[in-house]
Amino acid sequence: MKLISGGVCAASGFLAAGVHCGIRKNKTKRDLALIYSEKTCNAAAVYTTNLVKGAPLTVTRNHLHNGTARAVIVNSGNANTCNANGIEIAEAMCALVAESLGISSDDVLVASTGVIGQPLPLEPIKGGLPQLISELSDDGSDCAAQAIMTTDLTKKEVAVEFELGGKTCHLGGIAKGSGMIHPNMATMLVFITTDAAISPAMLQKALSSDVKNTFNMISVDGDTSTNDNVIVMANGAAKNPVIEEEGEDFAEFMKALNTVTVALSRMIAADGEGATKLLECSVSGAASEKDAKIVAKSVICSSLLKAAMFGADANWGRILCAIGYSGANVDINKVAVSFANGKGEIFVCKNGAGVDFSEEKAKEILLEKEIEIRIALADGTACATAWGCDLTYDYVKINGDYRT
Amino acid sequence: MKLISGGVCAASGFLAAGVHCGIRKNKTKRDLALIYSEKTCNAAAVYTTNLVKGAPLTVTRNHLHNGTARAVIVNSGNANTCNANGIEIAEAMCALVAESLGISSDDVLVASTGVIGQPLPLEPIKGGLPQLISELSDDGSDCAAQAIMTTDLTKKEVAVEFELGGKTCHLGGIAKGSGMIHPNMATMLVFITTDAAISPAMLQKALSSDVKNTFNMISVDGDTSTNDNVIVMANGAAKNPVIEEEGEDFAEFMKALNTVTVALSRMIAADGEGATKLLECSVSGAASEKDAKIVAKSVICSSLLKAAMFGADANWGRILCAIGYSGANVDINKVAVSFANGKGEIFVCKNGAGVDFSEEKAKEILLEKEIEIRIALADGTACATAWGCDLTYDYVKINGDYRT
Repeated sequence: MKLISGGVCAASGFLAAGVHCGIRKNKTKRDLALIYSEKTCNAAAVYTTNLVKGAPLTVTRNHLHNGTARAVIVNSGNANTCNANGIEIAEAMCALVAESLGISSDDVLVASTGVIGQPLPLEPIKGGLPQLISELSDDGSDCAAQAIMTTDLTKKEVAVEFELGGKTCHLGGIAKGSGMIHPNMATMLVFITTDAAISPAMLQKALSSDVKNTFNMISVDGDTSTNDNVIVMANGAAKNPVIEEEGEDFAEFMKALNTVTVALSRMIAADGEGATKLLECSVSGAASEKDAKIVAKSVICSSLLKAAMFGADANWGRILCAIGYSGANVDINKVAVSFANGKGEIFVCKNGAGVDFSEEKAKEILLEKEIEIRIALADGTACATAWGCDLTYDYVKINGDYRT
Repeated sequence: MKLISGGVCAASGFLAAGVHCGIRKNKTKRDLALIYSEKTCNAAAVYTTNLVKGAPLTVTRNHLHNGTARAVIVNSGNANTCNANGIEIAEAMCALVAESLGISSDDVLVASTGVIGQPLPLEPIKGGLPQLISELSDDGSDCAAQAIMTTDLTKKEVAVEFELGGKTCHLGGIAKGSGMIHPNMATMLVFITTDAAISPAMLQKALSSDVKNTFNMISVDGDTSTNDNVIVMANGAAKNPVIEEEGEDFAEFMKALNTVTVALSRMIAADGEGATKLLECSVSGAASEKDAKIVAKSVICSSLLKAAMFGADANWGRILCAIGYSGANVDINKVAVSFANGKGEIFVCKNGAGVDFSEEKAKEILLEKEIEIRIALADGTACATAWGCDLTYDYVKINGDYRT
């Protein structure tokens, strides 16, 4: 398995584009993206668990009832959520795309991201569509990835090449996500394409199983968005034997998917609103996987710890505190904690109590861009990893006046 | 029932003091407080639910086994938590106080607040005790309230006068709390005294029932502290008929207690680390009290909403989002939301969707120091209130480098 370029167009037969259509005021910001497959794909998706669901999610779910799709239309700048005419607009977006591409509206999926509760005008989308379609190309992933960004500072794109039954396959994706990120069962906007041949059922199984350990283990601010959505489309162009059950090929496909989703998860966490540092919390020795996950997520969600990491302050008491209130089954008197990255590893706590450590060495580790917080429990053998970011002045600045 | 001055010394027979003993480096900051009752009190307490519990909580719980107490010794600057010798130090603090006052060590309770995981030296406490005891007086509540402050900017003190069985009674308290505040079953450090006569069992019942709607409904940052503790002591000096069961007197006592705890809850939320605004979220029309509480707390815990309130931005979509992921049983299509305070009330959402409103009027309301977020569900008749604060640059500043 090797990392390659091309993002959502790395797989054969997928085209993409991204343009500025006018939903956003800033004319240099692309705000409309299209991903298109030359042939019908098997497709799967996972959605936010928020009771408030963006209208596009309802429409996408309906259009996916048969497990197939050919295109995804996405806008940024407006979430099309909590609007009286949301469904109507989302359906109209699909219909416009279908008409322009000469495909069934039922094969078009839709996603939106941006402010909640402001009606989404159809006009800019209608106006921008001809250019969007004319610019569709197999190197359009970059523009599409840009067009789905909101407060994101970095474009999120990754792809891998792997082999299934002697055939070379590709799987790649793009993502957006920077704030309102604390996914549950699904996450942010992520679009993944592959030319591997896999049945809709196995594709859904792969995705649903993967997100539990990837996108569902990220948190930027504890807020679960109304529009979280991961879509994966497989067009079978690689001509590998169709994956229709578990086995070696499915495992290899899962590995490719996981490589892409972990990379995108880390990119999203690192680009958390205002973030200056990526935090990775790895928990080992837990009584169960559930306990390991609860601990890892509780730690990366602690505002106090996040602020300490911003200040490069080895305030490990806040980690113990977050483990203690997490609700996980943990013997707190056996907990060990260390900070680690390329600069080395330093233990700050053993057996639930502080140990002498060099504040200077700790500072050196904590001033890096990526910090791993290692928590060794002694309750069992289960482990889990979660990703987050530091809490900074800029998070407050970005969110103090988002709408204007 | 009327508000009076005197705080924790408003009730007859209680003395208090607060001095600087040297646990904190800043010599102008008092860091050791003592509350003392001239006669034995019935006492009750509630404690943090964090699995990591400060050593003082264990000692206090042991000393309260018989439901009586005469003194509380409290230090700030060090939480005496996650230290190998924590229990030993907490016991020694009680023993020193007991010896100096000529009372039983078992009648001394202890609390600590500050950094976690650094051994608490006994020397400064030993050294400061003579001065602390010599300064005990019935107007010492002010100094005691100052001595328990950490990152608090305001001293928290309140008292009421009320009547039980024809006798004038008093109940007053002091509190500290600014960060690591998201209590569960108990909260921060709160010390309440009363001269009402009430049995230990009814006192515990009153306290346990009250905190569910007061201190447990505050959140500053979602972090449940390891040292949360509310202690109430009743010395019976008012000579009212002892409250030994539910009835009119118990109801009146509960009302007095609630007046004090609501006032302290609001003070703690308003003085949240870095806060510029007190947020009060009142939920009505819920299917159950549990649902009402879950919604109210989810809203005041949302980092995104808290940042929007800092920016006086009427971004109500974030409120709907927080209701949606709260886990409460809510019909989102019937939700109405308004902002209100002395400047008026403005509806921003009805039937789960946005309504036209004056941004100017909303700004006027949101620029005030206190903002009420009113959420009207249409699922039932239950209601609840929660208190929180905005998320600001200063929260990050305060917590980015707390230990130095």
